Amino acid sequence: MGENIGAAARAMLNFGVSGLRLVNPRDGWPNEKAGAMAAGATIVIDQARVFDTTREALADCNYVLATTARPREAFLPVLEPAEAAAEIKTRIARDERCAVMFGGERAGLSNDDVMRADAIVSIPVNPAFASLNLGQAALIMAYEWAKVDGRKAPASELERAVPASREDFERFFEHLVSELDAAGYFFPAEKRANMERNLKVAFMRAGLTEGETRSLRGVIKALTKRRKG
Amino acid sequence: MGENIGAAARAMLNFGVSGLRLVNPRDGWPNEKAGAMAAGATIVIDQARVFDTTREALADCNYVLATTARPREAFLPVLEPAEAAAEIKTRIARDERCAVMFGGERAGLSNDDVMRADAIVSIPVNPAFASLNLGQAALIMAYEWAKVDGRKAPASELERAVPASREDFERFFEHLVSELDAAGYFFPAEKRANMERNLKVAFMRAGLTEGETRSLRGVIKALTKRRKG
Repeated sequence: MGENIGAAARAMLNFGVSGLRLVNPRDGWPNEKAGAMAAGATIVIDQARVFDTTREALADCNYVLATTARPREAFLPVLEPAEAAAEIKTRIARDERCAVMFGGERAGLSNDDVMRADAIVSIPVNPAFASLNLGQAALIMAYEWAKVDGRKAPASELERAVPASREDFERFFEHLVSELDAAGYFFPAEKRANMERNLKVAFMRAGLTEGETRSLRGVIKALTKRRKG
Repeated sequence: MGENIGAAARAMLNFGVSGLRLVNPRDGWPNEKAGAMAAGATIVIDQARVFDTTREALADCNYVLATTARPREAFLPVLEPAEAAAEIKTRIARDERCAVMFGGERAGLSNDDVMRADAIVSIPVNPAFASLNLGQAALIMAYEWAKVDGRKAPASELERAVPASREDFERFFEHLVSELDAAGYFFPAEKRANMERNLKVAFMRAGLTEGETRSLRGVIKALTKRRKG
């Protein structure tokens, strides 16, 4: 189905994969629905190569994986998606050309096609509801490929933010404690050590930046203003 | 969009996740298109709970993650999907109720919604084509959850098949070598050891079962029949 091919192209490009080969697509090629569903991944669709048979599509490939949720009786090793991605990475580093085969939505890969593979990739779906479609299967393979290829999500500002120095933190906390003392918060006296420690741990855990400790000192000042005024 | 909710429901059930909460769905609820797109995952759709606000939807949750491809300036820790799944597993074991928030297709989560989270989950998409939709993002989170929860793909027959005993293999290989000897294959004589070893390694690597060594002995017999007859 054109829609499934488009979804697969989109899934591939989302994770930086682009070499798409099609074997005898049911609705002919090029296919309008594939382009529409690809939602911008037209580079993958435009560069897709079409073959009459699986044998021709795989002719120049050195290592081939077949995806199926049901490894059936093929006497082939079965890899998890992450293992498959790692194996592909190793082989690409040795200049091998690698392919992952996906079947159509209903029937999946034929037994003949599975027999062309070196190993099977099996996605660990819920056995009571195993209805992964082509786009979903391609998405998971491309995602595992991107992970093994070292793609990382962009860092947040938090990772670039420098945590407050211990001294900044201590000063903030002393400020808080002195105001709480003034308010008679630490009662009864024998519980003081515990109460103080619990409060400190909670603030520590937040991993405050220097700017945040400054803000919190401002908060304390604001809260105590009326009392002092 | 109803279609996106349906795709997310399907993605969830594929990996055994079912607790869906919706916040103020654009096209109302129940939604016909969601049911159609869910393709059999009606249990997720039928049991979905609808809330007017994100605050209400999260009211009983102890640990909340927000998904976004762009962690932006939220001062929150950023987790990879696999790390997020591991964290959720740890917390569920401590009886915490965990939620993963997803935004709508165009705008994603609002900054206000992101601020309700303990951490951000960021999927490492291709920065030049980051167009993951709701169904795709839900699929990857559910997949990582299934992995960390210990779901394995079904084993192939190969894993249940007992490899041939060394003795069976040696007999098969001796059979082959004796027939090759008879055919004058090992020539010149000084290369014999090498030729034999290379052949043996190739057959060893196939990890033959007992049945397969038997079949190969039949193959040798068949190939040498005419010569003997």
